Amino acid sequence: MTVRSGTAEWHGNVQSGSGTVTVGDGVFEGAYSYDSRFGEGKGTNPEQLIAAAHAACFTMALSDILSAAGHPPESLRTDARVQLRNIDGAPRWPASPWIRRDASRESLSGCSRCTRRRPSGCARCRARWPGSPRSS
Amino acid sequence: MTVRSGTAEWHGNVQSGSGTVTVGDGVFEGAYSYDSRFGEGKGTNPEQLIAAAHAACFTMALSDILSAAGHPPESLRTDARVQLRNIDGAPRWPASPWIRRDASRESLSGCSRCTRRRPSGCARCRARWPGSPRSS
Repeated sequence: MTVRSGTAEWHGNVQSGSGTVTVGDGVFEGAYSYDSRFGEGKGTNPEQLIAAAHAACFTMALSDILSAAGHPPESLRTDARVQLRNIDGAPRWPASPWIRRDASRESLSGCSRCTRRRPSGCARCRARWPGSPRSS
Repeated sequence: MTVRSGTAEWHGNVQSGSGTVTVGDGVFEGAYSYDSRFGEGKGTNPEQLIAAAHAACFTMALSDILSAAGHPPESLRTDARVQLRNIDGAPRWPASPWIRRDASRESLSGCSRCTRRRPSGCARCRARWPGSPRSS
C-alpha cells in the first residue's frame, strides 16, 4: 500500500525551543512545543496525533466488520486517549490505548456479536480488512 | 502526564462511506475515506498521522539528546514514512518506520557520538527524557 509521510522541524533545545509538525504533504501543519506536549500550552503534540490515528483506523475497521456482518453502520464515533507515561524511568506509549465508541442504536441493533466482542479491526490488533488491497 | 485525545466519525460502509478525524479538541479536523487511505483520494489517513507523530516525537527527543551533550540544535528536520502492509494476511504497521533526519552542520559539528549512533530518544525507543515530568 502507499507509503505515507509526516515531517517535523525543531529549533533550539527542548524546553525553550519550538517545532512544527506536518501531516502528509501539508494536509495539516501545526506548532508544537514542550509546553504543548507536557503542559497545557497552545499547539499540538505527538500523543494527540497518535490518538487521532488510532481512532480513525479503529472506526474504519469497525465499519468493515459491521458491514461484513450485513449491518453497515449509519454512524460510528470513537474517542481515543493516549498518555505518554514514565514506566521504569522511560517514556512509553502504553500498548493498548483506551478507546470508547458510540454508535447509533439503529446501526448496531441485530448485530450483538459484533458489538459485544472486542472489536479487533485496528491495524494494531491485526484484524483482516476483507476489502483492502493485497499488495504489501 | 496529560492524557491526550483524538476522535473519529464514520458513516456507511468502508468502501463508499466517509469519515472525519479530529486531532485533540479540534487543532485539526480532516476528512478521510477508503480512497484517501488506500488510493490517492483527497484527505488524510491514519498512516499520515502516525508518521507525523513519530517525526515530532523523534525530533524533539533528538534535540534533547544533543542539548544534553552541550549542542542544542539550531535546526532539525525529520521525514518519517509509514506504510500499512499486509503481513501474513493481516494489515500491520511495521514496528520500525524508516526515518530520515537532516540537521544543520553547525548544530551537529563536534558531536559525532550523538549523530553517529542510532538516536533512541523516541518514546517508542524507550529513551529517557531528562527534562520531562516524573509523574506517570
